[in-house]
Amino acid sequence: MAKTCKVSFEPGGVSAEVPAGTTILVAANRSGVYVNSLCGGDGVCGRCRVIVKEGKTSGGSTEFFTREEIQHGYILACQGKVVSDLMVEIPPETRLTGAPQYIEGEVPLLTDMSKLAGRSVSLSPLIRKTYVELPRPSLDDNVSDLQRLEQALSKSLQTQGFQMGLKITRRLPVVLRKADWKVTVVSGYRGPLTEIVDVEAGDTSKRNFCIAADIGTTTVVCNLVDLYSGQTLGHAAKYNSQVRYGADVIRRIIFATQTPENEKAMREAIVGDLNELIDQLATKYRLGGSDISLISIAGNTTMVHLLLALPAEHIRKEPYTGVAYRLPPFRAAEIGLHISPRGLLYSLPCVAGFVGADIVAGIFATGIAQSSETRMLIDIGTNGEIVIGNKDFLICASASAGPAFEGSECKSGMRATRGAIDHIRLQDADHVLQFSTIGSEKPVGICGTGYVDLIAEMLQVGLIDKTGQLNADASTDRIREGAQGVMEYLLLPASQTGNDSDLTISQSDINNILRAKGAIYAATTVLLESLNMKFQDLTEIMVAGAFGNFLNVENAVIIGLLPDVPCEKLRFVGNASLAGAKLAALSKDCYDEIFRIAEMTTYFELSTEPSFMDQFVSACFFPHTNVELFPSVMAKIGPQKVR
Amino acid sequence: MAKTCKVSFEPGGVSAEVPAGTTILVAANRSGVYVNSLCGGDGVCGRCRVIVKEGKTSGGSTEFFTREEIQHGYILACQGKVVSDLMVEIPPETRLTGAPQYIEGEVPLLTDMSKLAGRSVSLSPLIRKTYVELPRPSLDDNVSDLQRLEQALSKSLQTQGFQMGLKITRRLPVVLRKADWKVTVVSGYRGPLTEIVDVEAGDTSKRNFCIAADIGTTTVVCNLVDLYSGQTLGHAAKYNSQVRYGADVIRRIIFATQTPENEKAMREAIVGDLNELIDQLATKYRLGGSDISLISIAGNTTMVHLLLALPAEHIRKEPYTGVAYRLPPFRAAEIGLHISPRGLLYSLPCVAGFVGADIVAGIFATGIAQSSETRMLIDIGTNGEIVIGNKDFLICASASAGPAFEGSECKSGMRATRGAIDHIRLQDADHVLQFSTIGSEKPVGICGTGYVDLIAEMLQVGLIDKTGQLNADASTDRIREGAQGVMEYLLLPASQTGNDSDLTISQSDINNILRAKGAIYAATTVLLESLNMKFQDLTEIMVAGAFGNFLNVENAVIIGLLPDVPCEKLRFVGNASLAGAKLAALSKDCYDEIFRIAEMTTYFELSTEPSFMDQFVSACFFPHTNVELFPSVMAKIGPQKVR
Ligand code: FES
Ligand code: FES
Repeated sequence: MAKTCKVSFEPGGVSAEVPAGTTILVAANRSGVYVNSLCGGDGVCGRCRVIVKEGKTSGGSTEFFTREEIQHGYILACQGKVVSDLMVEIPPETRLTGAPQYIEGEVPLLTDMSKLAGRSVSLSPLIRKTYVELPRPSLDDNVSDLQRLEQALSKSLQTQGFQMGLKITRRLPVVLRKADWKVTVVSGYRGPLTEIVDVEAGDTSKRNFCIAADIGTTTVVCNLVDLYSGQTLGHAAKYNSQVRYGADVIRRIIFATQTPENEKAMREAIVGDLNELIDQLATKYRLGGSDISLISIAGNTTMVHLLLALPAEHIRKEPYTGVAYRLPPFRAAEIGLHISPRGLLYSLPCVAGFVGADIVAGIFATGIAQSSETRMLIDIGTNGEIVIGNKDFLICASASAGPAFEGSECKSGMRATRGAIDHIRLQDADHVLQFSTIGSEKPVGICGTGYVDLIAEMLQVGLIDKTGQLNADASTDRIREGAQGVMEYLLLPASQTGNDSDLTISQSDINNILRAKGAIYAATTVLLESLNMKFQDLTEIMVAGAFGNFLNVENAVIIGLLPDVPCEKLRFVGNASLAGAKLAALSKDCYDEIFRIAEMTTYFELSTEPSFMDQFVSACFFPHTNVELFPSVMAKIGPQKVR
Repeated sequence: MAKTCKVSFEPGGVSAEVPAGTTILVAANRSGVYVNSLCGGDGVCGRCRVIVKEGKTSGGSTEFFTREEIQHGYILACQGKVVSDLMVEIPPETRLTGAPQYIEGEVPLLTDMSKLAGRSVSLSPLIRKTYVELPRPSLDDNVSDLQRLEQALSKSLQTQGFQMGLKITRRLPVVLRKADWKVTVVSGYRGPLTEIVDVEAGDTSKRNFCIAADIGTTTVVCNLVDLYSGQTLGHAAKYNSQVRYGADVIRRIIFATQTPENEKAMREAIVGDLNELIDQLATKYRLGGSDISLISIAGNTTMVHLLLALPAEHIRKEPYTGVAYRLPPFRAAEIGLHISPRGLLYSLPCVAGFVGADIVAGIFATGIAQSSETRMLIDIGTNGEIVIGNKDFLICASASAGPAFEGSECKSGMRATRGAIDHIRLQDADHVLQFSTIGSEKPVGICGTGYVDLIAEMLQVGLIDKTGQLNADASTDRIREGAQGVMEYLLLPASQTGNDSDLTISQSDINNILRAKGAIYAATTVLLESLNMKFQDLTEIMVAGAFGNFLNVENAVIIGLLPDVPCEKLRFVGNASLAGAKLAALSKDCYDEIFRIAEMTTYFELSTEPSFMDQFVSACFFPHTNVELFPSVMAKIGPQKVR
């Protein structure tokens, strides 16, 4: 039997006992420490850099590191095996600590939805708490306890068709009598039926709270909403812990479907994340065990499957079918969520394997489906989803863009967390004019919006050309040969960064971003073409998504991620999914409308569309092969800069 | 610590080890042997007669026994305590072995219901099995697995609004693919929604069976119904094992509400009974684990509460309110029933604490609520329930009659099982002309219909007078002083019986029957009066109920249990409840109609009606104080015989 070694991690001071021969990545997972592991431990992404401070390891000192780094103790956590007790430091760029930036974006209120819908959308939450005082039973009025309750509720809610589970029915007579017939009925919307979820003694009708959650592949964001007042009280966000099993949905599906234990681990990771956020909000706002009776979830299709333990396996295999896209409400306790034990989970509907409830909720919250004018919604993440439509039709497609805009895949890329450069301006090829970091900390990396700015600036100062090639002739010595002979541009030297490493952008980073933006732009073009439309026909183009901070829309046009339309037609709408999840919770009408939207949305399969590859190739230029599509950009960067 | 004694019971040969000091009744319950115990062990009913053949006991030799009986070893099982190892014989009259008589009565078929309803009532069972062959998913058609299933089902069933639980949704992709997209969908009716209960590989649509159950206080009767053909395949019946905890609902409620263990024991008793009958039918008809997907239950209110573990406590206390009378379908496995693990239990609706689903099902099956003519339904049991109505109104009442007509409370009374005299004719005061017993065995007691005949005959041959007084002047020496100085009539001497005991009817037996019939007749009168109606206004009077065999309706009129209306207006309809439970299972329309009937039925509380006591007193004569109400009876028994 292998001997057991103790692996301690800094910062944090946690440790795990593992058999010798275990990888450091596994040891980190065991001890609950997050280590960036984009490729899921295959040793190919180079993101799991850690520094061994004390003890012996074998392997993991790969070509990802410079000689200095190796001397410094750097190894790949997924390749380095534990030989003795270890002390391991996780450098900032490898950590997944800290919370993601929380972006509310342009969140519509019910009053906005009323305007959009052209009729009053009133506060009618999916879970209601109704205080009723029942007449005491007498010989003249000796209906059953349940009927007595239903009669009062029916009067109050102006509805019929109640249904109640056996367990709560069993408790009913005791609750009613102990509370002297003054109770609060917790009732949940189930379409034509209303489920009496719980009956609480006394008047608790003002203690009715909800969690609205957007479960993304990368981040999990929750709002705490007061269903009595309709107000949003607070928010909390964290990275999706499933990332330790793979950065994208494909890797996670592969992992989850390997063994039942894996599936369980995957489910427990996301349930744990949600519970952490719920607990955090409940503590902050001093909520009790039965105060939160509803969780409304907008997740992408894979996230919903993994959360509910629906086998996700077929989502990733042609023809990409999920188990179920439209689900009725479930008891949240059934999957272990920390809301009221009898509270309900409403999972918003998905459209296809790669068009999830997050998009549907976003379509709703942006009001696209409420207008007779045609709009486009672009949700940028590892998968870019594109929607075009109005109140009469909706069509959507999904294009795999890779995680570049989520801050992965690039050497200095990082998520939009503390220390990430989110905006940057260059003075010229040699000088950075200004930049900002999240949390105003010393920079340790670049996040998605930072890369959009950086590429746009590099184009304008002539550091790269239309093909994305680094311009060796540029008047700077910041362009140099980096690791493995790949050319790179030195943005900030180690002396100016928070992790004593140079901040760079390499040729392969630029290529990654080129492909990512190319895939998204091509998808928008193909989808428009399928409708015989042009960008000019759209009233508005809205951008939502995984950018951790506000996107500079103008720069997104310069790099050709977004089309060259008048500025006022482009809008960054932030986290529209979360807004949709919240609106659904607040109003049955909104909830129903979201289901109607899912129903009417046509899925357009890009992978079988021959023109997609052509369009992709054409779009793999900055801003585009066809410069006539980007007249304003050409005016800015000038043909002279574009060789 | 008390020493342990072994108590063996004959016949049966089972035994139990109990501490010395335990009563024989408890020992019998422990060993699973049924001992009649009407008063629940209070020592006042005298029904728990057993014979101690070997060993020592203390107590239990009460005034219920003659000196000979005591010498023979008779003691009350509930009072006699175990002192040493015992061998106890349970005489036939104390046993609850054998199955109750199964009476189908006049069971309407769907075609009859169609006639009554004036429209076609088609076979549309509450649980359907639909075989579907799904198109394989492709890139052109990659909806979710669930939607694929729902689309096919929707086409087949011409319905929408499906709902599926999380557990079965999780299994869906595997089932569909293993079965090569050819599956049978088991779907259950939930009003506006259809629940997909299960999905089975291949075509199992012809294996769709249902248990229809009538759960009475005394007997439990089940039908096995083929939902594919609509045919009833078989039946099974047994005594309700809860009888060991009390003969009537009041005693059982008291017992069940004493401790959670008691409630559990009570529930397990009835669940055990149902399972025994289900298993019996499943074995006989070679049904597999998932073939029976539905159980449709018509029970009285208390039975439904005890079965579903709804606290029954308030049913027996003024103002007599149950927990819930209208319940949605539940998973049958939730209460431990041996049908398909995912099968549903549909519990038919009750109206009040003492007007249960058995009555509602009976109202439906007899067609009262489908006709514009007004009819009365009398259900005779420990509680007599009376219904008057037509398609526009329904009113009902419940009167406590005592268990005399169920063969209890009378010295020679017994349930309608083997050896019970069910019909009898006297030649004169001194001679029995003929009698029949159930199973054509040697008589060991008299059941309900036997008592109706016997009293009617005794009236006609002058053995009793209008007040029910035994006629000491009758020309017979069979009238004698019995135990405790109570006068009795010797029907059959021990030499002609199957248990070497005289079969007698005592003055107090006659008084019991007088009160029982008086309560029921008074209830019918008060209810009619409340409507300003007379018996003559009724098109028909139907009698259902706990009689173990066909009631001689003419004799029931003679004793004044039923009113003196033309013979053709009286009809014994047998087990109408079971018929209703079956029709509900076979047709959603019937199920809905039964709920509509429960909804429209007005409960009339007799206990607060001042005229009830007057009517009861007037009805405590044979046939009635007001002989003008019974002209045909007076013609038969003649005023000369009625002193
Ligand atoms: S290289 Fe270690 S996780 Fe990718
Ligand atoms: S006397 Fe023994 S049970 Fe009633």
